[in-house]
Parts: sequence; structure tokens; C-alpha cells
Amino acid sequence: VQELEMQLEALEKGGYEHFMLKEIHEQPRSIKDCFRGRLNASEGWVSLGGVKDYEQKMINAQRIIMVACGTSWHACLVGEYLFEDLARINVEVEYASEFRYRNPIINENDIVIAVSQSGETADTLAALELAKSKGATILGICNVVGSSISRITDAGSYTHAGPEIGVASTKAFTAQVTVLTLMALSLAHKKGTLSETKFRTMLSELEIIPEKVQRILERNSEIEEIAKIYKDATNALYLGRGSSFPVALEGALKLKEISYIHAEGYPAAEMKHGPIALIDEEMPVFVIATKGTSYEKVVSNIQEVKARKGKIIAIVTEGDTDVKAMADHVIEIPDTDEHLVPILATIPFQLLSYHIAVMRDCNVDQPRNLAKSVTVE
Amino acid sequence: VQELEMQLEALEKGGYEHFMLKEIHEQPRSIKDCFRGRLNASEGWVSLGGVKDYEQKMINAQRIIMVACGTSWHACLVGEYLFEDLARINVEVEYASEFRYRNPIINENDIVIAVSQSGETADTLAALELAKSKGATILGICNVVGSSISRITDAGSYTHAGPEIGVASTKAFTAQVTVLTLMALSLAHKKGTLSETKFRTMLSELEIIPEKVQRILERNSEIEEIAKIYKDATNALYLGRGSSFPVALEGALKLKEISYIHAEGYPAAEMKHGPIALIDEEMPVFVIATKGTSYEKVVSNIQEVKARKGKIIAIVTEGDTDVKAMADHVIEIPDTDEHLVPILATIPFQLLSYHIAVMRDCNVDQPRNLAKSVTVE
Repeated sequence: VQELEMQLEALEKGGYEHFMLKEIHEQPRSIKDCFRGRLNASEGWVSLGGVKDYEQKMINAQRIIMVACGTSWHACLVGEYLFEDLARINVEVEYASEFRYRNPIINENDIVIAVSQSGETADTLAALELAKSKGATILGICNVVGSSISRITDAGSYTHAGPEIGVASTKAFTAQVTVLTLMALSLAHKKGTLSETKFRTMLSELEIIPEKVQRILERNSEIEEIAKIYKDATNALYLGRGSSFPVALEGALKLKEISYIHAEGYPAAEMKHGPIALIDEEMPVFVIATKGTSYEKVVSNIQEVKARKGKIIAIVTEGDTDVKAMADHVIEIPDTDEHLVPILATIPFQLLSYHIAVMRDCNVDQPRNLAKSVTVE
Repeated sequence: VQELEMQLEALEKGGYEHFMLKEIHEQPRSIKDCFRGRLNASEGWVSLGGVKDYEQKMINAQRIIMVACGTSWHACLVGEYLFEDLARINVEVEYASEFRYRNPIINENDIVIAVSQSGETADTLAALELAKSKGATILGICNVVGSSISRITDAGSYTHAGPEIGVASTKAFTAQVTVLTLMALSLAHKKGTLSETKFRTMLSELEIIPEKVQRILERNSEIEEIAKIYKDATNALYLGRGSSFPVALEGALKLKEISYIHAEGYPAAEMKHGPIALIDEEMPVFVIATKGTSYEKVVSNIQEVKARKGKIIAIVTEGDTDVKAMADHVIEIPDTDEHLVPILATIPFQLLSYHIAVMRDCNVDQPRNLAKSVTVE
């Protein structure tokens, strides 16, 4: 029986050594699955059937509250950035555990969106129930069909990423960000805060994101080489600005979860207000330094780290030369619209954490102390 | 000349070995200075002259945005909790650096409150200028009289903590929290969200906070003993819930800044979504576990850490027995109204960081890589 189970598991892993690696590699497909029936760039439309009836309410809302825990909370932070910048709708992101116990100010005009892979996260579910009891409209973004959150919400959108077995979330996260991106685009289009040209360009860019994810995955061995160099680190910092700040948080969380290295994410500009004191030759600093509005600022943050002899591993846009000249290592990702960078920039961090954890002989798919769904408080 | 300067500095330190230690010990007085002319518990009033004319506008505001960096950002998080819970006014806290570059949704109905010790923090100043250009009302909470922020704002309140020389902020932080507490109480009273009885009880509690701070300072040698045990730690976690979550962030930042130990703050319930994987015998976990609404929840978080053999150093309410039975070390603080715990719970963390840094031979008053005021981006 033991042997049969092992064979079965090997089959389920589809030739990959771990579920996590399999799931990382599934992302071009899982993102495409998430688009299905929702996005058509050539015809110029985006539509999330599940929440269509609530779009006008979202547009009229004084604010939308997003609640989640862990990785899903990071997806919400990306969502906040997209909703505010593209659709000009105020969003507040809350830790579900804090929201539910803080006696939140909420009423029937409010919209609460919960994000959860399993749809069973105890704190998130309780936060939704509280919001519902106060009359708010509650929406859900879940991966597991028929889950508790999908059942109690007024409406919602599934991420359609397929079953995720690895405890550290990968494809579920990029699918959450994808759904939030589709939602932001749909709201922006309906509200008229995006020009038709810009809208169409973004749809086209979004549609080819899966191929760009694929191109990043092809850099796997290059990323593995970098992992070899930093596998014995005891600490790490992850920095980003704007919508790349949550990517930094998520990158740090992945490393924490599966390799037990104490990694922490920070908005790059906050470095000078404390964390820069930690920097020495021993401290790898992972930075998202892709082309865009905050590029120059991130470059100057990199210079500050280098001046203190920190090691820089930067995610840059293909063809970048400035950061390459300063950083110890760079990982190139394809150019895309700035709003779509979070999906791409996440991938190298997933692979880095994976390889580091494997090299440290950690149980990648079932890290110590962690459960896949946190169904207790 | 060298000798004279050293004598002068010794005089300025008033018998303390470092400015930071002097400033920590000044807090009973600096908080009292912050009350002067603003709080009278026996007569039952609180009044912040500087912002009085803007109180009605704050009460009517759909939301108040607080912007800051570093330690001041933590004060804002406490402020958010107090404004929302006591005065039922929505508050959003933003990193100044993120706010200014994110194309924020802001208009003439919005109120932006900036918090900065120096009043010169570059990102905070720029965030205010941006908000002002969009027609928002801008208010300031600064320590340095006549600083740039105090000059460009429509109105504001000084913290009156006196000059702070140590780079790691201590008395300025507690003064910021004190001003925000006074402001929240004043708004709550005016708006009628607090009963007269509750309001008066809180004023009385607040008025005796300086004596309670003094009682915590008298535990200095006890805290020094705990510092001896953990001085060689390479990592640490700080946990709290509700308004103690920002205290955890601030506690972690202090340790980072002056002892170069990688400490990170987390809302306690988020542990299970990742950071708990870091826990082993080597990891000290500092927890705020005072009596109050989230006490039971924090107790169960402590049990989870202990089950993974983590070391617990807990801040508890005087007379606590439950946590004492579980934790490796406890530091007792006097009982007070739950909303005032942040001021008290901060003090032991300041002393802990101070002693650990001294034992590690770090330059306490001028930590590496850090400047007192971050006047560049």
C-alpha cells in the first residue's frame, strides 16, 4: 500500500519533485484558466460574471474593504493599488483577524471583499459574518468551489487555479492577483476612469501575461544558481515600491514559510527609517527594480544598500543596464504594463524560495508548523 | 576643547550613560508636558487648542488619512485604532513614501494628518504638499516647534516632548501617541460617541499614566536581567493584537535600529499564516498579553509558540497568572484602560532594546546607517 501511495503521489506531481514546483510551473495555465470567459482583448471586453450585478455598487461605494490573511492579504494589497489607481475607488485592506475584533465602522453602504484560497480561513470567514451582520455587501474571491466563504457571500469570483497542494501558496496567489486585476479593469472601464485606448492596451498586455510567466520559468536554472549563493543566509530583506511592495512582502513570506530564513518585506523608502541599520555584508536584499514610475527611487535605495555593503539581488526589466551595473545579481523579467508587474515579479521569488528550501533539506510541501488552510483562529 | 565638549555632553545626559536612556526616563515628565493646558480630568475636559477649529471638520470627514514614516507611522496606527474605536471616524494610515507616489484619491473634503518628530521628514512633507495641492485640509503633529511641517500645515498640535537626541525615538513616540489619544478623546466627546462617564473615567486614567510609566521604569533592573538572556539572539518576533499590534511593530523597530538584531512585528493572529514556521528554541517571541478584549486570543497564540519550543517574553498586566504560568519571562505593567495600553506597553520594549544594544557594544545614540531626521528621500 505504501508503495502504491508513493507511486500515486509521484503521478500527481506530474514529474516534478514537489507539488510546489509543479504548481509554480502550472501558472501560465492557471492564469489562462482564470481568464477563460472573462477576458477578450481583441473584442475589447472584460467581464466577471459572478460580481457583475455588484459593479455599480462598487463604483458608488465610498470605500471597499478587503479582508484576508497571509498570502491572500498580500493579494489584497496589490488589489488596493489597482482599484485606486485604475478605477479611483478607495480601498482599505485589513487583516481579517484585526478587523473582526476592532469593532469596525461598517454599514449597509460598505462592500467587503474577502480573499481566501481555501474559502475556509477562520478569521476571514468570521470577518465576513461580522460585516454581513452589519448589513454590508459581502463578496468573495476563493479558489475552492463550494467553500464556506463562497457560500455565505452575496456574490464572488473563483480564481480557477485548480487544487493547490503545497502549503506555501503560489499559483493561488497569482490567480488572486489576476482576478483582482480583471475586476479593477472592469470597474475602471465601466466608471470611465481609463481611456478606451489605455483599457485595450492593458487587456492585450494582460492576455499575454501567461507567455511572459512562461519565459520567467525558463530562467529556472539561472535562479537556482542564485539560490546556491544565498542558501545559508539567516536573514533577508525584500524591498519594493507601489504595487511591488506587496510582492516584496509575499517574496519574504515564501522564504520564511519553506526555508525558515527570517525574511522581511518593506516598502523601499522605509529602509532609512530603521531597517537599514541591519545591512551588512551578510544581508541579502531582494529588490523589485523594474522600469516604471518609481524606478529612479528604487535605484537610489539600491545605492544606499550597496554603500553599506549589502548584497543586492534585483528583479529588473529585460534589457536593464543601470541596476545591472550596481546589483550583485539580477533576474530579468519581460517588460509589461506597470500594473501587471506584480504577477510577473512574484515568479522569481517563488523559484528562489523553492530552491533555497530544497538545498536546506526542508520539507517544501509541508513546512513545519504550518497548515494549508487555517481553519481555526 | 575635546575634554570640554565631553564634559558638556555628560552634563546634557544628566547623569545617564546615553541620551536614549535619559529620554526613556524623561517620559513621565514629557507625557505630563504634553497634557499641560490640554487635559483636566477633575473638571472633565480635554482640549487641543491648535486643532480646535478643525474638530467639526474631522467629525464630518468621511475619512481621515494619516501619513508618516518609521516610528511616527506606528504612532499613526495606534491613532487609527483610537479614532475608529472611540470617535467612530474612519482613518487610513499610509506610509508617506507610498502615499505620495501612488496617485492618491484625495479631495477638498479630506483631512490629512502628518506625524513627524522633526517636522522635516522629506517624504512626509512631500505627502502633505501633494494633499494640499489637491485641496485637502492638512494638519500636523510635530515635536520641533517651527519645523517645516508645522509651518505648511493649516493647523496642528505639538507633542512638547522636548529635544530628542537619541536617533531611536522613544519619548517622541509616546508623546505622539499621547496627542493622538487626546485628539481621539476630544473628538469622541464632541461627537457623543463616548458616554460622559466613560469619557471622564478615561481622562482620569490618562492623567495618571505618567505615574504608571514611572512604575514601569522602576523595573529597569528586572528588564536588564531579561536583556542579558537574549542579547545574543540573531532574530526576534514581536506580537500584539489591536492597538498593541503597532506597539509590537515599534518594539521590533527599536531592537532593529540600535542592536542590529533582525526583529519583526506581526499581528499575533497572522503567525499561523507563515511566521510560525520560523519558531524554534532559538527564537525569542515578545508578546503584549495585557488584560482586555483580546487576552484569551493572545494566550492561545502564546500556547502555539510554546508548543513549538519558542521562548516567550510577555508584557502582562500586574497580577496576571495565566500568562505567567506559560511564558519564559513576564514584565508586569500597571492595569489601565485598554486604549491607553500602547503608551505603557512601549516602555519595557524601549528598555529591553536599550540594554541589549549596550551589552552588544552598539552605539546606542547613533546607530550605524541611521540619521535622526530623514530629510532626504
